[in-house]
Amino acid sequence: MAKEITRAKTSASASDSGKGSAFIANKLEMLGKDMLAQIDADTSPTFTTALRSKGNIIYDNGVGFIRLGDKTEERTFINVGQARKFMQTVAIASKCKKFLKEDAHTSIRGLYYQLKFSLGDTLDEELFSEQSESNPLVEDLEVALNVKREDLNLNTDRKGVVAGPMVLKDRFGGDETEIDCTKQGRSGWMIPSDVDNGMEFKSIDADYVLVVEKDAMWQRLNEDKFWRKENCILITPKGQASRGCRRLIRKLASRKLPVIVFTDCDAWGWYIYWAIKSGSMNLAYLGNDIATPEARFVGVTMRDIKDYDFLEQLTINAKEVDIKRAEEMLSYDWISCHKDWVEELKTVLKTKKKIEQDALQGPRLSFVGDYLREKIEKKKFLA
Amino acid sequence: MAKEITRAKTSASASDSGKGSAFIANKLEMLGKDMLAQIDADTSPTFTTALRSKGNIIYDNGVGFIRLGDKTEERTFINVGQARKFMQTVAIASKCKKFLKEDAHTSIRGLYYQLKFSLGDTLDEELFSEQSESNPLVEDLEVALNVKREDLNLNTDRKGVVAGPMVLKDRFGGDETEIDCTKQGRSGWMIPSDVDNGMEFKSIDADYVLVVEKDAMWQRLNEDKFWRKENCILITPKGQASRGCRRLIRKLASRKLPVIVFTDCDAWGWYIYWAIKSGSMNLAYLGNDIATPEARFVGVTMRDIKDYDFLEQLTINAKEVDIKRAEEMLSYDWISCHKDWVEELKTVLKTKKKIEQDALQGPRLSFVGDYLREKIEKKKFLA
Repeated sequence: MAKEITRAKTSASASDSGKGSAFIANKLEMLGKDMLAQIDADTSPTFTTALRSKGNIIYDNGVGFIRLGDKTEERTFINVGQARKFMQTVAIASKCKKFLKEDAHTSIRGLYYQLKFSLGDTLDEELFSEQSESNPLVEDLEVALNVKREDLNLNTDRKGVVAGPMVLKDRFGGDETEIDCTKQGRSGWMIPSDVDNGMEFKSIDADYVLVVEKDAMWQRLNEDKFWRKENCILITPKGQASRGCRRLIRKLASRKLPVIVFTDCDAWGWYIYWAIKSGSMNLAYLGNDIATPEARFVGVTMRDIKDYDFLEQLTINAKEVDIKRAEEMLSYDWISCHKDWVEELKTVLKTKKKIEQDALQGPRLSFVGDYLREKIEKKKFLA
Repeated sequence: MAKEITRAKTSASASDSGKGSAFIANKLEMLGKDMLAQIDADTSPTFTTALRSKGNIIYDNGVGFIRLGDKTEERTFINVGQARKFMQTVAIASKCKKFLKEDAHTSIRGLYYQLKFSLGDTLDEELFSEQSESNPLVEDLEVALNVKREDLNLNTDRKGVVAGPMVLKDRFGGDETEIDCTKQGRSGWMIPSDVDNGMEFKSIDADYVLVVEKDAMWQRLNEDKFWRKENCILITPKGQASRGCRRLIRKLASRKLPVIVFTDCDAWGWYIYWAIKSGSMNLAYLGNDIATPEARFVGVTMRDIKDYDFLEQLTINAKEVDIKRAEEMLSYDWISCHKDWVEELKTVLKTKKKIEQDALQGPRLSFVGDYLREKIEKKKFLA
């Protein structure tokens, strides 16, 4: 019975994210009740979660993203090597249930201080001495319960901005607010940590989603009202996409909006794209919640240098990290199966050049909009 | 005449920031016309700016912030050692004027690519080969014209979020938008690069401004609607404050709103506070535009450990950087003249402990609000 209730998330099936605090609190309660039942039955309480180590991380060709495999880990209380970790996990689960009941959020740092505080006077020994002890156990809990930490009222670092024809309903801290992403002025709307709970799309009237690596470029396109002229939702992750940003992109893609990504042609830019598309190793356990295999890459590409003469003089020398990354990417099955990407990466290796999206402002500041319009209209995308 | 028009900003007088693009474009035009007049008079055109090197950076006790001294630097065209830099400066001024006329913004990276592009075919030699050449010349221009780069349509990195009883009018990219900072939901309003041009306060109905170092803490207070209950404007710089964030704080202080800062009790937290209050070395040339000497420090303090028993168990060991910073701060006249700060820093040196604002969530998540309420009501501030 235990294993059924605390079943680890080992497949690419949908998660229980966003089902609301009552539902999640109930899951936590079941976890505890199950342990109590084990104790009543004179067996040791156990906690089962999916292994998150490298050996259990796979790229799943069928679904097109990185996810955990089927290996699980069982932790039991009556085991000298596991008792402390077991107790820590239960303490974290208990705190999260409290946060859900109180309808209050905190960070994993805030959680750590709560754990440190409340146990200070009840135990002889500190249950947590460093935050590095509690962090991986939060991940264990996410996987075991088939939810994200955001569902456990734990905020994650937020980053990224959005503008465009989309209205959101935000219920938070007792308020209900309508966020009209066409009315956010120069700033745009900052993408929060949690885009599931207490947050819904009221209306989306866009033809596609454009994700732009750099905030400076996003501001350029926002000033030119690219999102209005092209009827798209304009997002910048401001570099590597946060969990909230990846989740928002995933949710928009699930509404059948094409997702088009625009980054530098270099190691960092490619990484940003592939993390949005296929997920990443360290977040493999969230695979189906945050990966968007439908995403396509609009540029900047090495091929652009042939199509737009002026770009030649604006290329810069590739760094070692770019070369190394290109080689690595060519060694991944799921990238090397795309002919267009192979050609791109081989050109980088041959010319040892790279190019930034900012270079498209060379001829005039508004050129970048023309470039995007042309390439998107002609569907000049990489996989 | 030249020196009058291109007069360097060497005093703590008000800048010409925010006077609008026509005014600023005119200043740039005057700069060029003045050079032409010099050529007509058979003299070499010159460009005068304030020295920004360490020897010309002073802490001005009278005004309470770091600013440039009176030393200036003159650059002349007919000088082998200065000709290239002179031409580069003129090229940048010309581009900025173009951006102002076009009513379009870009980043200093975008500016660099424009410079690289447009000169590519007219000169035998590249006028700019690295962005590190154009960056300091942008600063020269800011100082010489007595404006900020934001006034020259150059965007800076933006960071930080605000919520509270304040309505802004934002004219940008042809749109006019009203931003009501009470209606920004879980996210708050992202503080832009430029809070001067095309942006005005429509209404402010707050009693004070609370600046909270960490975004996680800001989200906690935003969820508890601290800004509504306490009628304050709640800002997080998300760590070190961006130029736009410091400028916004300065502008709010100029409207007679008390500014109260809440950071960690450690090297980084103190630095954030003192940069908001007194400016910083690298932005000394913007002194009067971004410093808020009126700011007061509410916590976290070493003294708090005595006043709130539970904090003792939640302190952490100070790192070398904290100790070093505390020693440095004690050596600054403008800090060591404050008895309360001396006591704080000496306690850190003695106990070798530090404490984070997150620790105030130990007893319960909402405790941090009670702590702030109590200290603010009793005016328990450091200078």
